[in-house]
Amino acid sequence: MSRNVEADVVVVGAGLSGMIAARALLAAGLTPLVLEADERVGGRILTEEVTAGVPVELGAQWIGDTHQRMFALAEELGVQTYRQYDDGETSYELVGSGVLREGEFHARFASELKELELVLRRLDVLAAEVPVEAPWSAPRAAEWDAVTAGAWYDAQGLSPVARTLLEICTVGILAVPTAEVSFLHLLFTIQTCGVTSELFAESEGGAQTTRFVGGTGEITKRLSALIAAHIVVEAPVQTIEHEVDSVTVYCRGGLVARARRVIVAISPTLAGRILYDPPLSGVRDQLTQRLPNGSAMKAFFVYDEPFWRADGFNGQLISDIGPARMSNDTCIPGDDHGVILMFLEGDEARTAGRLPEPERRAALTAELVRHYGPRAAKPEFYVDGEWSDRQWTRGCYNANHGPHVWTKYGAALSTPVGVIHWASTDTATYWSAYMEGAVDAGERAAREVVESLT
Amino acid sequence: MSRNVEADVVVVGAGLSGMIAARALLAAGLTPLVLEADERVGGRILTEEVTAGVPVELGAQWIGDTHQRMFALAEELGVQTYRQYDDGETSYELVGSGVLREGEFHARFASELKELELVLRRLDVLAAEVPVEAPWSAPRAAEWDAVTAGAWYDAQGLSPVARTLLEICTVGILAVPTAEVSFLHLLFTIQTCGVTSELFAESEGGAQTTRFVGGTGEITKRLSALIAAHIVVEAPVQTIEHEVDSVTVYCRGGLVARARRVIVAISPTLAGRILYDPPLSGVRDQLTQRLPNGSAMKAFFVYDEPFWRADGFNGQLISDIGPARMSNDTCIPGDDHGVILMFLEGDEARTAGRLPEPERRAALTAELVRHYGPRAAKPEFYVDGEWSDRQWTRGCYNANHGPHVWTKYGAALSTPVGVIHWASTDTATYWSAYMEGAVDAGERAAREVVESLT
Repeated sequence: MSRNVEADVVVVGAGLSGMIAARALLAAGLTPLVLEADERVGGRILTEEVTAGVPVELGAQWIGDTHQRMFALAEELGVQTYRQYDDGETSYELVGSGVLREGEFHARFASELKELELVLRRLDVLAAEVPVEAPWSAPRAAEWDAVTAGAWYDAQGLSPVARTLLEICTVGILAVPTAEVSFLHLLFTIQTCGVTSELFAESEGGAQTTRFVGGTGEITKRLSALIAAHIVVEAPVQTIEHEVDSVTVYCRGGLVARARRVIVAISPTLAGRILYDPPLSGVRDQLTQRLPNGSAMKAFFVYDEPFWRADGFNGQLISDIGPARMSNDTCIPGDDHGVILMFLEGDEARTAGRLPEPERRAALTAELVRHYGPRAAKPEFYVDGEWSDRQWTRGCYNANHGPHVWTKYGAALSTPVGVIHWASTDTATYWSAYMEGAVDAGERAAREVVESLT
Repeated sequence: MSRNVEADVVVVGAGLSGMIAARALLAAGLTPLVLEADERVGGRILTEEVTAGVPVELGAQWIGDTHQRMFALAEELGVQTYRQYDDGETSYELVGSGVLREGEFHARFASELKELELVLRRLDVLAAEVPVEAPWSAPRAAEWDAVTAGAWYDAQGLSPVARTLLEICTVGILAVPTAEVSFLHLLFTIQTCGVTSELFAESEGGAQTTRFVGGTGEITKRLSALIAAHIVVEAPVQTIEHEVDSVTVYCRGGLVARARRVIVAISPTLAGRILYDPPLSGVRDQLTQRLPNGSAMKAFFVYDEPFWRADGFNGQLISDIGPARMSNDTCIPGDDHGVILMFLEGDEARTAGRLPEPERRAALTAELVRHYGPRAAKPEFYVDGEWSDRQWTRGCYNANHGPHVWTKYGAALSTPVGVIHWASTDTATYWSAYMEGAVDAGERAAREVVESLT
């Protein structure tokens, strides 16, 4: 049941990066064909309406003030934005402290927070030495890539509270424990985003301050509508034959697409599963063997109202008991429901994420009750979403680089191989791992293709 | 051009493990069908005749005294064995020592060698606490799996000479720098093989003491001949559809095989590239994202005679200048040529291995001349072999577990998923990563299948 189609450029994956690339190709007068394995577009963006008027984000959720590409895209697509609710106190429980309100926590652990602050400033200084286009060329790249971020953290002589807070903040970005990534990768991640204060959302305007009216899915829905004639879903790419000026792309199910170029716009670990003929180099192949996706999962509790606000809480908690290490108030403007998002990241995604839903929900409920009282036990709705089980995603938020990956293999991450180009946020140099990076990488890959064809 | 075939059990991969499984299935009265992606059988075993009478091993080469399965297999197949030449002195150059003969080296660095000895004994003691069937259940598994072997080594307070020697010995086994693997994985590797003295080949009867007459390829050639009617080469498996009591296996090129069970007998990173339908769990998938193959390469210099023997050398060198960190005399009994094998492992495989052959050969020649004098510059033949570039192997010697892989994902390594069973030496519990482990795993997978079908 094979079917043959032709295009100028095949794009593998209808995530944000692939669709941005396709749109840019169209704008340049080329005909793209986006082959999406899943039955839906959007990739790591997935909005689900829990109840009428309450869309929740099982995937990418926020943008920050420096995400110009995303603000421009939203404006172009007519998607409104709003600021994340952030009034009130965070609730803490760390290193046996019991549950403490932010004011109390800051008073009791002032010196520990000062320690943390000093480490963050030190990270900013070191990160500034990492060129985002070529992290392996940093003067101390070899040294930084030989140790894990966790080992570097451990060596800072921090108090348990400061070390634990640092771990929670970092895992909130990497979605794997710091023992699993190289210190150079942590510094790259900081540098690609600016400074730690933006990344860790300490400050106004950080990475998690703005959301989209209707949900992030509005972005991908409207973007896909612009290029709908050029997208085929349920077309998993299994083989790419490539020659000097052409590619033939084979999908499960029989679709065969011929084109002059291909942009592979999926995470590196998934890109590594495609059979390339002729074979890619050992460097490229061993790279994709070494870029596992993180482990992340989100759980949403929807209440009749955001009752915690009346108690002076901002809906954020930080806990080392868990199972969620962090939470957010993710209420929808104009809707009365109260929505709390609990994050399961790294080890918690791997332990609580593998429990039957009722057990996971019960453990998360107990945590919310500790922080916000008995009303937290009575949500109207609950929904959670896991990513490693999803055949066409296999983990979130992004690719993580263990020791030596950047220095020994990094150059192969985004360098085109003949007529094969690479996109996805994992290959971005600006806000890699974020939606902003997906756009950055998609635009860059499209630019490469256009330049090579004109 | 699809072609349909049927069997009781499909085996993916005609490496040693897959062929052993197929043979065991046949013996149990079942009909196997081995689907091999490459045009040849043997997997990580590859013997090449450099010149008449001089077969060299680009892949697996030695067995040790405790490898009973391999001795039995050789006997059954009528393949003779011989002892590796080991008379004379090793040549050293470490930490700026210049080139030193073994006696001189031992005299000058006696206390450093004593340090090394103490660390190896300590490793043996700790490794004994790791159950090979379930390394994650070791009492201190969480602690050991959170640090890299390199970090643990660094924390031992060793002198530069002892630390360097320890790194060279360990990389000789793992084929990646110790900074890339978890300490728990190192301990598992030791325990699966017995004790460090066997693994590091310090002692008589270690892992690298016995070879096969005619080359290791004789083993796979004769084994494949026994099951020749059940092997199809150039049949890369891309999709496995699995149901309660059946599988349908799709190959590139159109071959479709139906069977009741499937044994996937390829390295985990390659097993993770197959499309399984229904999808495998996130645990299994994220496991195979996290088991990259090592980086190893061998280079052979063939001379008119083993001239180093007359100078009292055993053909082994240990160097931290390199590019080879180690070498071996691999002459063939009954043949006059002198054969030196240079090992490029871990970083050296990634740097020297990516050079054009003439440059790599020149650097290796310079190293041999430093140790064995000007005659080393005049080989009759040179051949080397890289594994990461090979489409159907993608690295050697085996899968390496970074931090947290064993404790968070290890249980999914060999546990069958319905009708899908897992083999390859990477899944073995006895001499994992060695030929002995390939046989161990192949026999175990076949046993599982036979039990499930009878």
